[in-house]
Amino acid sequence: MKKFINKIDDIVTEVIEGLVLANPEILSNIPDSKVITRKSINKNKVALISGGGSGHEPAHAGFVGTGMLDAAVFGEIFTSPGPDRIYDAIKTVVGKPGGLILVKNYTGDVMNFEIAADMAKDEGINLETVIINDDIALENSTSTTGKRGIIGTIFVHKIAGAAAEAGLNLQEVKRIAQKAIDNIASFGVSLSGCTVPASGKPGLIVPDGEMEVGLGIHGEPGLHREKQKTADESAEIIMQHIDQYLNLKKGDEVGLIVNGLGGTPMMELNILARKAIKILQAKEIKIIKSFVGNYMTAIDMVGFSFSVIKLDAELKKFLKAKVVTTAMVGME
Amino acid sequence: MKKFINKIDDIVTEVIEGLVLANPEILSNIPDSKVITRKSINKNKVALISGGGSGHEPAHAGFVGTGMLDAAVFGEIFTSPGPDRIYDAIKTVVGKPGGLILVKNYTGDVMNFEIAADMAKDEGINLETVIINDDIALENSTSTTGKRGIIGTIFVHKIAGAAAEAGLNLQEVKRIAQKAIDNIASFGVSLSGCTVPASGKPGLIVPDGEMEVGLGIHGEPGLHREKQKTADESAEIIMQHIDQYLNLKKGDEVGLIVNGLGGTPMMELNILARKAIKILQAKEIKIIKSFVGNYMTAIDMVGFSFSVIKLDAELKKFLKAKVVTTAMVGME
Repeated sequence: MKKFINKIDDIVTEVIEGLVLANPEILSNIPDSKVITRKSINKNKVALISGGGSGHEPAHAGFVGTGMLDAAVFGEIFTSPGPDRIYDAIKTVVGKPGGLILVKNYTGDVMNFEIAADMAKDEGINLETVIINDDIALENSTSTTGKRGIIGTIFVHKIAGAAAEAGLNLQEVKRIAQKAIDNIASFGVSLSGCTVPASGKPGLIVPDGEMEVGLGIHGEPGLHREKQKTADESAEIIMQHIDQYLNLKKGDEVGLIVNGLGGTPMMELNILARKAIKILQAKEIKIIKSFVGNYMTAIDMVGFSFSVIKLDAELKKFLKAKVVTTAMVGME
Repeated sequence: MKKFINKIDDIVTEVIEGLVLANPEILSNIPDSKVITRKSINKNKVALISGGGSGHEPAHAGFVGTGMLDAAVFGEIFTSPGPDRIYDAIKTVVGKPGGLILVKNYTGDVMNFEIAADMAKDEGINLETVIINDDIALENSTSTTGKRGIIGTIFVHKIAGAAAEAGLNLQEVKRIAQKAIDNIASFGVSLSGCTVPASGKPGLIVPDGEMEVGLGIHGEPGLHREKQKTADESAEIIMQHIDQYLNLKKGDEVGLIVNGLGGTPMMELNILARKAIKILQAKEIKIIKSFVGNYMTAIDMVGFSFSVIKLDAELKKFLKAKVVTTAMVGME
C-alpha cells in the first residue's frame, strides 16, 4: 500500500498529535480522547462542535479556530465517533451561552451526536443541533435517510462560526446555520474510489475511461456511471444540477467551493474553477468568494465537487468575516 | 488518464485563468503572456520574480501576493518558461528599486532567467539573481549542475518577500535571500512517479513495497531505492540527512515545511509532521513555524519532503512577517 503510515490502529491518534504539534498557537486536544479544540477556549460565546469519521482531512479539525469551530470530534477512518468523545467535546467547550452541534447527514453520525447531546442536556447544558444535507446527487442513499452531507458543510462551519464569534445567541446562530443549509447545493464526480488503510485496496473501482457521477465521500455508490468527460464538460454537468436546484437568477450573489477529493492536483482544480466561475458569470451571478482546494477529501480519491451557497446580506456578511484556522485563514 | 483537463495544450492558460478568476482581489495576469502578478503592483519596493515549469501547483503563482512574490512565470508542464515571458514579468513589476530573480537550480531555468535578465539589464533595469539549491539528496543530477532546487524555495520566497515588503534595498534583499538559501536543507522520498498529461502514464514506476529516496520533483532519479518504510522510519531517515547537513544543535531555532508531492493525503502529512517535530523537539530545537501541506507538488506523485531552515534573528523576523497569497496566509 503506497501510504506513509505507522500502525493502522494509531492513525487517528497520530493525526491529532501531528496537528497540535504543528499548530500549537491555534489547536489543543483533550487528553485521552480524540477531540481537537481551540487553544484558547472562550466559554462566553455559543460553542460550535462538529466532527465525524476521519479520512476527510483537513475536515473537520482544520476548521477549528477563531471564526469557525470550537471543537472537532474524530471517528476512526470513515467511522462515526462514539458518543463518549462527542460528550467530552461538549463538556470541554460549551459554556452558559450553549452550543450548536453541526452534523453531516449520515445515519451513524446523527445517532451518536444525538446520544451525546442527550447525555449533556440531562446535565443542564444548553444545546441545539443542525443536520447538514447538501449533496443533491441522491435523494436517499445506502448510508443516509435523505441527502448526504458533504463539502457544503464548510460553508455552514464558516457562517455559523462567524455568527457565534459576533456574539449572537444560540437560537440566532442556529437560525443562521439552518438558513445556510437551506441555500447550499453540492455535487461531485469521481474517476476512482479511495483506499481505506485497513483494507489496503480501493473499495470501489471506477474503470478507466468512465466517471461516477455523485460518488459518495466514502466511496459509496453515486447516481450513475458514464463515459469520462473533459474538465469543462464535467463542470457543466455539475453546475446544471446545482443551478436547477438553487434556481439561480441574474444578480444573485453566491459563494463557491471547488473541492478536491484528495487525488486531484491543484492544477486540475484551477482548471475546474475557471469553468465553474465562467458558467456563473455568464448568468450574471456575482461570486462573493471562491475557495479552491482540498477542503473535504475522501482519502486519495480522484474527483472533485462544487458547492454553491446563495447568499442574502446576512449570510454574505458572515461568509466574509475574519477566520483563523489551519485550513482557512484570512478574509476581510 | 484519470485527470480533469481539456486540451493538453491549454492546461497552463486555463490554470492561469482559473487562478485569476478565483482570486481577483489578489492576482492579475499579463495578457498574451503566461505570467501572474499581484493585483496591485507596487513599483516603489524591490520586486521579486520567480517561476519555472508547471505541475508544481500551488508553486509558484500561489505565492504571489503581499509579503511574497510580485510575479510568477509559467512554463509548460515540467518545462522551463522561455525568456520572453520572464522578460514580460520583469518589465511589468520592476521599478526604480530593482528586482530580485529567484530561480530553482535547473539548467533550463537558470539559462532562461539569465537571458531574460540580460535583456532587461540592457535597458537599464536593476536586477539581481539568486539560485536556490536546497535539495541535499544529490550533489549533482541529470538536470542540474549542483544540487536541485525544491520545496525550500518557499522559505526563500517568504523571507526575501518580507524583506522587500519592509522596504529594504536590492542588495539587502539579495543578501537575506542568499543567507536563507545557505541555511536550508530539503530532502524527499516517494512511493510513485507522476503522470505528465502529455504522456498519459507515469514516467518512472516505483514498484509496490519500495520507495525512492531523493526522487526529483519531475520524476528524475533519486539517490537510491530501498524497501518501503513506515511513516516514522521515513521521517527519521530524512531528518538524519537534514540534521547532518545543517549541523543542528540544542537551542537552535528553525522553520519546518512538511510538503506533500500531490498524491499523499493531509492525513499522512499530519502523521509525518508529528514525527518530524518530535525528532526536532527531542534535540531541544525550537520550531518557530511549521507549514504542513501541498506547497510544491509533482503533479500526482505519492511522496513527501521535509525542509528545515536554521534561523537567526533576521531570518526569523522575516519568516514570521504577515503574508497574503492564495497558498499561504496569515502569521504574526
